[in-house]
Amino acid sequence: MKRVKCTISYDGTHFSGYQIQPNQRTVQGLLEDTLSAIHKGERIRVTASGRTDAGVHAHGQVFHFDTPLTIPEEKWPVVLNTRLPDEVTIKNAQFVPEDFHARFSVKKKEYRYRVYTSESRSPFYRHFALHYPYKISVGEMKKAAVDLRGEHDFTSFCSAKTEVVDKVRNLHSITITEHEDEIVFSFIGNGFLYNMVRILVGTLLEVGSGNLRSEDMKKILDAKDRNQAGKTAPPHGLYLWKVDYED
Amino acid sequence: MKRVKCTISYDGTHFSGYQIQPNQRTVQGLLEDTLSAIHKGERIRVTASGRTDAGVHAHGQVFHFDTPLTIPEEKWPVVLNTRLPDEVTIKNAQFVPEDFHARFSVKKKEYRYRVYTSESRSPFYRHFALHYPYKISVGEMKKAAVDLRGEHDFTSFCSAKTEVVDKVRNLHSITITEHEDEIVFSFIGNGFLYNMVRILVGTLLEVGSGNLRSEDMKKILDAKDRNQAGKTAPPHGLYLWKVDYED
Repeated sequence: MKRVKCTISYDGTHFSGYQIQPNQRTVQGLLEDTLSAIHKGERIRVTASGRTDAGVHAHGQVFHFDTPLTIPEEKWPVVLNTRLPDEVTIKNAQFVPEDFHARFSVKKKEYRYRVYTSESRSPFYRHFALHYPYKISVGEMKKAAVDLRGEHDFTSFCSAKTEVVDKVRNLHSITITEHEDEIVFSFIGNGFLYNMVRILVGTLLEVGSGNLRSEDMKKILDAKDRNQAGKTAPPHGLYLWKVDYED
Repeated sequence: MKRVKCTISYDGTHFSGYQIQPNQRTVQGLLEDTLSAIHKGERIRVTASGRTDAGVHAHGQVFHFDTPLTIPEEKWPVVLNTRLPDEVTIKNAQFVPEDFHARFSVKKKEYRYRVYTSESRSPFYRHFALHYPYKISVGEMKKAAVDLRGEHDFTSFCSAKTEVVDKVRNLHSITITEHEDEIVFSFIGNGFLYNMVRILVGTLLEVGSGNLRSEDMKKILDAKDRNQAGKTAPPHGLYLWKVDYED
């Protein structure tokens, strides 16, 4: 048995999210169906670093699976890509020790969120960035982001539906860059709660557009109350960018 | 009667091209259906600067139509965009004199062609750039482009099917820029023959990858023979970028 670690990118537009669900088109379902076909019908399970919601994209999601086949590691991307639709690409595959686990071995993750600020909507961004055609201060958002960095209880920035008890996470960095009509948010942390990045972006945009002040961010964190934060930004601007297994 | 000039961008992926055809989903068909609905069923014809093929995109296509309605010019984009699918956006509308003609008044056009050169394919470029994961010399392509500039008979770079007799066109500029994993070709000229940009790109890529030499370009032009040039590059990398009505 070999354990294979794969890095995958996908356009999440036409998937009901990553996680397998009956009668839904999911990335995990597609991967398991494809691997099972390669294994002559034997059901192969894949384990990813975490789920992504419907409409959310991945630039560098990671998953692992175990195989009895003798395909060399550098052949796995071709073997899979020739069978997968072009919305999904295996970018890299490597053999890893059997104690590697795509979810439990994660050290840090990066998410990015793209915002398109041009006045008129663009057909080319419609699935790939939030269209936000309002006056927005990147400077104020950068100020607000300072208070979010570091270890905090992120209850205010987490879907109220979540069942996770420990809501303390360490947000190593937040960077916000502007280029022409596009603003890109990057979040790097040791872990993320459900909807956390989308609520962070929704709240930062309230600061950027003047509905909240940058000083409010600390109060919102301290309140530990989802209702204090801004709206959940829509899924199609979000990308699981990179998953790191080393510090 | 008012003549309205509109600038429109569209994602050509899910259209059978610009020009109206029975039982096909076309940009022109969509525009005429939408305008006819606004005019209470009266059939409104639109005239564009030219057609684009299936899969070809537009950043700045231009069309005109005549209307008896009293909608102010700045309202037309909203009136149309609220009824159009988000693959299509009216970016601008203005009233023009009745001797303006979206096709016959054109002074110059710009087309761009995007090439994605990363080794692994990308789900995010699949409809928007040609994936060309080969070693390619931008310098050699720039050298080859020099001989294409100016007024030439472009028979060698025109679909053999074309019925146009006069194949002389003036190519004002060709620029080729490289940024990370992407090469963008821009062509500005007074007019373009059928498939001309796609054949120019296909031929320049042959030069870039070493199958042709930059010196061959002049011989190919002089041959006035479509068979001497390279392959027609696929439609999904092509964008009608800008149409100019002033010199």
